[in-house]
Amino acid sequence: MQLAKGIEWTTHVCTIIALLPEGKGLSVDALAEFFELPAAYLSKQMQALRRAGIAQSVRGKGGGYRLAQSPDAITLLDIVIAIEGPSPAFRCTEIRQNGPCGLERSECKRPCEIAAAFAAAEQAYRSALESKTLASIMQEAAMNSTPEHMMEIAGWVQRQSS
Amino acid sequence: MQLAKGIEWTTHVCTIIALLPEGKGLSVDALAEFFELPAAYLSKQMQALRRAGIAQSVRGKGGGYRLAQSPDAITLLDIVIAIEGPSPAFRCTEIRQNGPCGLERSECKRPCEIAAAFAAAEQAYRSALESKTLASIMQEAAMNSTPEHMMEIAGWVQRQSS
Repeated sequence: MQLAKGIEWTTHVCTIIALLPEGKGLSVDALAEFFELPAAYLSKQMQALRRAGIAQSVRGKGGGYRLAQSPDAITLLDIVIAIEGPSPAFRCTEIRQNGPCGLERSECKRPCEIAAAFAAAEQAYRSALESKTLASIMQEAAMNSTPEHMMEIAGWVQRQSS
Repeated sequence: MQLAKGIEWTTHVCTIIALLPEGKGLSVDALAEFFELPAAYLSKQMQALRRAGIAQSVRGKGGGYRLAQSPDAITLLDIVIAIEGPSPAFRCTEIRQNGPCGLERSECKRPCEIAAAFAAAEQAYRSALESKTLASIMQEAAMNSTPEHMMEIAGWVQRQSS
């Protein structure tokens, strides 16, 4: 089981476009350059964020992608669902209804105990990701960073979007 | 992100082979028939359980797979790791070290805040699966089942393994 690389990429990208001045955006090419990522693939991932209402595009000079919501309204779970879709990782195919001792469908109103256990684990995973907003990630990153490095990033964002 | 179907299959299989009398096993063909699963693919999954020390094979008449440990010593996490491997779903590729504002490797001793958040969520997922043993799943299933259905399963297991 592996999460799409796009999740790592777009989460990092979101922490950068969160720094943009009002009304400005960053192009996919600039973002791809900033993280040394393949622009064509990143472009698809950013479109997925746009469709999910996490990012939006700004036209014209200084245009490109920016966040569509405040960083404290976007969670890591939102980003995972935008990139991977909402389906659970464990998909019950009701094999308890198969074979010589299979249950009737009418006897299976309650979820299978195995499916229920996996659903509970996924709920724990999702809750943990839901508790982390972009704002909280950025705050932790800032605390672990140096003022020089943060100024360097802010300067790059400003130059690219002006 | 999707878990391999083998996880659903082998977890169900484990709840059946847990019912075997001492020294007996069930063939992959019998198990495939019981759940209407493709025998060749199930065989690969059962080999993975054997390599992980969850199942063992018994030779001779009435031979096949049986549990290698007590059902209360096998957790759902053990089965997931046997089938999917131990790698985390989120794999950090350290893109914070890339590009014009990239950090030096020596500045990255602490995990990236994004990677740390995903690791914490995966830990919550794994802890939930680790808290569920085969024995606890079987107990829940028994409570939600009827005596007739349990006798039916026990009878099938006995006939196949004798």
